[in-house]
Amino acid sequence: MTFSALSHLECPKCGQTHDADQVIGLCPCGSPLLARYDVPAVTLTKDELAARPPDLWRYHELLPVRAPENVVTLGEGMTPLLPLPRYGREVGVERLLMKDEGLIPTGTFKARGAAVGVSRAYEVGVRRIAMPTNGNAGSSWAAYAARAGMAALISMPVAAPEICRREVKVVGAELHLVDGLIGDAAAFIREQEGYFDVSTLKEPYRIEGKKTMGLEIAEQLGWQLPDVILYPTGGGVGIIGIWKALVELRELGWIDGPLPRLVAVQSTGCAPIVQAYEKGLPESEPWPDAKTIAFGITVPKALGDFLVLQAIADTDGCAVAVDDETILAEQHHLARLEGAFICPEGAATFAAVRRLRESGWIRADDQVVALNTGLGLKYPETVPL
Amino acid sequence: MTFSALSHLECPKCGQTHDADQVIGLCPCGSPLLARYDVPAVTLTKDELAARPPDLWRYHELLPVRAPENVVTLGEGMTPLLPLPRYGREVGVERLLMKDEGLIPTGTFKARGAAVGVSRAYEVGVRRIAMPTNGNAGSSWAAYAARAGMAALISMPVAAPEICRREVKVVGAELHLVDGLIGDAAAFIREQEGYFDVSTLKEPYRIEGKKTMGLEIAEQLGWQLPDVILYPTGGGVGIIGIWKALVELRELGWIDGPLPRLVAVQSTGCAPIVQAYEKGLPESEPWPDAKTIAFGITVPKALGDFLVLQAIADTDGCAVAVDDETILAEQHHLARLEGAFICPEGAATFAAVRRLRESGWIRADDQVVALNTGLGLKYPETVPL
Ligand SMILES: [Zn+2]
Ligand SMILES: [Zn+2]
Repeated sequence: MTFSALSHLECPKCGQTHDADQVIGLCPCGSPLLARYDVPAVTLTKDELAARPPDLWRYHELLPVRAPENVVTLGEGMTPLLPLPRYGREVGVERLLMKDEGLIPTGTFKARGAAVGVSRAYEVGVRRIAMPTNGNAGSSWAAYAARAGMAALISMPVAAPEICRREVKVVGAELHLVDGLIGDAAAFIREQEGYFDVSTLKEPYRIEGKKTMGLEIAEQLGWQLPDVILYPTGGGVGIIGIWKALVELRELGWIDGPLPRLVAVQSTGCAPIVQAYEKGLPESEPWPDAKTIAFGITVPKALGDFLVLQAIADTDGCAVAVDDETILAEQHHLARLEGAFICPEGAATFAAVRRLRESGWIRADDQVVALNTGLGLKYPETVPL
Repeated sequence: MTFSALSHLECPKCGQTHDADQVIGLCPCGSPLLARYDVPAVTLTKDELAARPPDLWRYHELLPVRAPENVVTLGEGMTPLLPLPRYGREVGVERLLMKDEGLIPTGTFKARGAAVGVSRAYEVGVRRIAMPTNGNAGSSWAAYAARAGMAALISMPVAAPEICRREVKVVGAELHLVDGLIGDAAAFIREQEGYFDVSTLKEPYRIEGKKTMGLEIAEQLGWQLPDVILYPTGGGVGIIGIWKALVELRELGWIDGPLPRLVAVQSTGCAPIVQAYEKGLPESEPWPDAKTIAFGITVPKALGDFLVLQAIADTDGCAVAVDDETILAEQHHLARLEGAFICPEGAATFAAVRRLRESGWIRADDQVVALNTGLGLKYPETVPL
């Protein structure tokens, strides 16, 4: 068996396939590309897997990096899946679990996409990357670029968390601030030459890193899937990744039965996916005047919106928006009851759990996994001194 | 086999033994107490261990919690042990590894002591804890107390990292600031009634949590010990814990040969252990006007100083002090070369690696483990905007 079962890249919009062993961004049709694997050739067993080190590279057959020596790692993956008995009892979901993506390099789930994205970019010959970011993705990609010895140019809104600027600077990446939103940062990046653009879904491998959250949840639950998984949704790569992971595990024959109902959680200050879901549209419309304390999910129009909506539809999931006041209240409430200081984006999923339980969409006996995407530490201003 | 092989408590100063199943702080003679185990009764094999979940509770036979239901966990342990090829080459230590304690709840190694200390305190009946802290220990103990449903009173210097105040508040602990150093915070705590004092080494189990760093390093290296382990030293529990772990593993028959040379690293702004080591004293003298950017190791006189000095002597180790300017330079240097944004205390160990290699104390072919005790994220001011 080879290290990676990567076969080719496929366009989920026009169906065209592309050679994976080249520097490539979007499909010529404008859609993101998805990595496809020769799954039947994977001979890995669950027991073999169980003996591997506790990081995301344990799933290397289903990751795109072909040679182990190209793996760029800071020890990311196999984050805790924690029962929340006290909080769960209060909201009426006894079997509530938190997948805690705070315990990962750079303190957010963005590290997964960066680890795999940087590794694979390096492998196909990229040595200079550039990206727009709401902050945390920039921190992660800058860190992994440094670890790989690559140059990185990161553009972010001035309103992005201050700590992310420091993280980008300390690892020696170039930082460019824009007075606007992530779309304005993206416009700046498009004007730069000599860099590979690693914007969300503009390169095919970030999603492969994010996918490992789904692989881990399945493995940590002994290959028995939960009933519901809730994910804070900005660019949407996390939820698409989890969906992709579960589909691949089903193809591998390691799981069966219905997939968990996937829930995209947004802020009422920026809820284009929720709006499209409620209107039954296949794509979202750009959200005007986007603004929320959950800065990481301030994405007015995501390139992969149609895939998020497909993931929801395919799993009988849903999309809900919660307001900033509720997000902050839930963040503090969870901290007091369970000792976990999570980020506002993560707190949004807990607000959604409470709401969906109240409406009956989540049942009292459902096993529910809520994703916390990062450390509360990166958002100090959410706790008054 | 029972869950824990805990046998009794022993005083390393007067030799007296004490029943472990009671609420107890120091030995009547004033010394910290150490937990002792019925090691010959441990039937665990390395293969059985390898199949356990990747957190510190995998070593439960050598931990003091008797009943699994008393374990208070946020998913702590099995942090990465990362090769640092680029940095290592530059300082002339090719086999340099970093044990990265940033990837743990609350972002510092203090979580280990808090997880085990809170669990065991709960088990023997404690429901209210109080402690003085330089910041990070308070963050951790407050978080685990909340997770356990216990009340916590935390006292820290006003100069402690601001983020730690927010962490204590968000989990609902009571925060008391003192205009002074950790000794002044300790004086405040001593005046309070109705709390169990969980100050460093005033209760016997924090060190058991810290011990797991040593267990993990041994396991992650396939039970082959490194030549040198460097540890930033304030209260000294980490280095004592690692030493204790290695001695217990030797007793278990899982390791043999000489122990790694243990190095206590301090700042020139507060170096009582280094001074005692250089003078050949069995204990340190209180350091006047202690002040360093590595705030976590600002401990003018540690209760366990004699044990730190014993650990150094027993392993042919040493103690070195590095100045703040060097610490910050090394922190930035490591970030640029390896993508890891570490805390000043952790950076001190890297400054010490460079120094000890230059002096020849570390040899070019030594395998060296440097402990990073926490996230750079908790020290934003170390990176100018
Ligand atoms: Zn296409
Ligand atoms: Zn004694």
